[in-house]
Amino acid sequence: MPHISHKGLELPQSAIRKLVPFADAAKERGVHVYHLNIGQPDIETPAGALEALSVKAHEMAKNHGVLEYSHSAGIPSARRALCNYYHRHGIDVTPNQIIITTGGSEALQMAFTVCLNPGDEIIIPEPYYTNYNTFASLCGAKIVTVPSDIKTGFALPPMDEFEKYITPYTRAIMICNPNNPTGYLYTHEELLKVAGLVKKYDLFLFADEVYREFCYDGNKHFSVMQLEGLERNTILFDSVSKRYSACGARVGCLVTRNSEVYATAMRLAQARLSPPSFGQFFTEAAVDTPQDYFNKVQKEYVARRNVIVEGVNKIPGCFCPMPKGAFYTVIDLPVEDSDHFCQWLLTDFSYNGATVMLAPATGFYVNPELGRHQARITYCLNINDLKAAMKCLEEALKVYPGRLPVAKKAAAKKPAAKKKAPAKKK
Amino acid sequence: MPHISHKGLELPQSAIRKLVPFADAAKERGVHVYHLNIGQPDIETPAGALEALSVKAHEMAKNHGVLEYSHSAGIPSARRALCNYYHRHGIDVTPNQIIITTGGSEALQMAFTVCLNPGDEIIIPEPYYTNYNTFASLCGAKIVTVPSDIKTGFALPPMDEFEKYITPYTRAIMICNPNNPTGYLYTHEELLKVAGLVKKYDLFLFADEVYREFCYDGNKHFSVMQLEGLERNTILFDSVSKRYSACGARVGCLVTRNSEVYATAMRLAQARLSPPSFGQFFTEAAVDTPQDYFNKVQKEYVARRNVIVEGVNKIPGCFCPMPKGAFYTVIDLPVEDSDHFCQWLLTDFSYNGATVMLAPATGFYVNPELGRHQARITYCLNINDLKAAMKCLEEALKVYPGRLPVAKKAAAKKPAAKKKAPAKKK
Repeated sequence: MPHISHKGLELPQSAIRKLVPFADAAKERGVHVYHLNIGQPDIETPAGALEALSVKAHEMAKNHGVLEYSHSAGIPSARRALCNYYHRHGIDVTPNQIIITTGGSEALQMAFTVCLNPGDEIIIPEPYYTNYNTFASLCGAKIVTVPSDIKTGFALPPMDEFEKYITPYTRAIMICNPNNPTGYLYTHEELLKVAGLVKKYDLFLFADEVYREFCYDGNKHFSVMQLEGLERNTILFDSVSKRYSACGARVGCLVTRNSEVYATAMRLAQARLSPPSFGQFFTEAAVDTPQDYFNKVQKEYVARRNVIVEGVNKIPGCFCPMPKGAFYTVIDLPVEDSDHFCQWLLTDFSYNGATVMLAPATGFYVNPELGRHQARITYCLNINDLKAAMKCLEEALKVYPGRLPVAKKAAAKKPAAKKKAPAKKK
Repeated sequence: MPHISHKGLELPQSAIRKLVPFADAAKERGVHVYHLNIGQPDIETPAGALEALSVKAHEMAKNHGVLEYSHSAGIPSARRALCNYYHRHGIDVTPNQIIITTGGSEALQMAFTVCLNPGDEIIIPEPYYTNYNTFASLCGAKIVTVPSDIKTGFALPPMDEFEKYITPYTRAIMICNPNNPTGYLYTHEELLKVAGLVKKYDLFLFADEVYREFCYDGNKHFSVMQLEGLERNTILFDSVSKRYSACGARVGCLVTRNSEVYATAMRLAQARLSPPSFGQFFTEAAVDTPQDYFNKVQKEYVARRNVIVEGVNKIPGCFCPMPKGAFYTVIDLPVEDSDHFCQWLLTDFSYNGATVMLAPATGFYVNPELGRHQARITYCLNINDLKAAMKCLEEALKVYPGRLPVAKKAAAKKPAAKKKAPAKKK
């Protein structure tokens, strides 16, 4: 048979999905699995936006309508609605600076294609969202990571650390804010530092802000689109579907004031004809969702986060920072190997007929060793389930054979913390 | 500012869109433009499928539902529904041989990425659907064309013509059936010949069959999926949204029995998380649209096609073959330069306050010279508009300054017809 392409063979396998067969087997055995591994919110999709789509489809059916291709950049009124949304968040952009995409994923893919040559490097603080790998790999670009530290809650590493990684191939810095997988919310000051570096080396600044609405404890989100003097450098990826707990709608957007990037991305947009119209009908109504919806959602996520942070930190040898955004956190575990532990939870453990599924953090690092004692937790379940899941985790660590004694764990962590940038670059 | 990528700079501009600003200007002047240039059907979207989506969205709103990510390959019940559809068309596939995509475009992009290395060649009969260029360009592959001839209605060129173009870099043969832009419907015999070549050289066979339901005059569609012994070679691209006149729904699929291609495409599918759910809800209902819907649609398109074929052929110096499928045809025009003529129609001509917009065929050939005297016509307007458009074309050719005398035109065509394969390959 004809061969698969080299790019095809190199496509990374999703780290988050590796354990799915073990979870399925656990369920087959009758064990309940608390899914703390996936970012699928259980929050209600705004009924008003669903109803608006329902009415639109009904009217089209009644009036013998035709569901035509939309504009390749998205329905103009939907783009105007997004502009209004951004304006309310202190971001001033025009409809001709927005391309509506099939989820944030397509926005990422477009921007990487438009901006990156084979061999180009994107600097990202790690741990980072693994799916960036696939889109980088598709254009032959390389993700270069600057380690952030769980002890600081995964704050932005110092700029001189970033600078160590800059080479003639560096083309972009990428920031996910609030962060998946760490839940860290970058401050205005941190973003100003990134801006300085972007200007100094004339780089692209890619920003994934799909969790913009999920900021806690009174903290405000500051967008890269609010950074001055970076109009030609900055490209924003956003997701309407993630924001309004409508992941299946697959509506996102690429936003940039760089007219050359925009025009080039439009050629890609035209080649794929148009973004999905049903999702755009949903979007037009969704962006008018009252603020009260997010107030409730934020309150709920804060309560959930607190269950996780408290639950993890009271387990001897575990540590969970206090994330300020998104619905993720990366925790420290007193285990030799988090991949083994997370698999063992599904294959060998249950407590009161249940177990817990975590995402080993190894998949969120370029160098898996850095995540060897960590796991990502998502808090997309209700409070009671999260409490039960924390109890499972606590009981599991009492009996897990690969558990590290606290002293030994600290020793085991040292090499990773000591790792020097120059060695990493080889 | 940081530079656009080489790939970005090389992205082809859509040939069909080049004239849009001239059409807009004509409309500004109050001239009515008959759009024979775009494949946006005016046929009613099946009301039952729209209504099913409407009900689903309404129930979700009423029940505080969550629109979750679907399976990355598509909702299992939607894939089963597609299997039933294919079974009714003599194509037996399983849900695990289908990946639901965002329109046929994403299916194309996935398959090209999975199968083609930089420098690889795809052989396609020309004229061909221009957007293939973008997806080939994205993976550094090259489209190599075998000219088909308007005199045969653009039938499959002889296999020894194809064979002249096969090199060590040839990785695939691609067939669009029924064809966009020619409307040609490949016969069972022609496809068997292609199959022989695909087997002989162990190539991929890419087939774009999005117009499967649009076959006329009692002709039956024969799918590449019905070719025996090519299970590991064949990849089908399909479009639910195009089939059911719901272009904006953006639902297509990739179908293959090659498990390695499927598994690799699934990695891409997982990286972009899932296809749009609303469109999939529509799809599940749409595939149950009664056959009567297509009978009516076919009857309508046959009537429209006949208006075009008769209208064009009665204009001195023009020629239109008799297409058997899709809603396109490529016609011969007695003009020096169809790009100039199509632009002139918009900038300098009107008849009874109207003009006609055609797609110059130069954009459908690798060597634009081959399309210099041709244009693509789509018949997506109602009969009366099509008749008025034909009258416009007739009147325009009476006064167009770049019109060729019939004898001269025949001479001008000769060099193109004589062009030899070896010269082309340089």
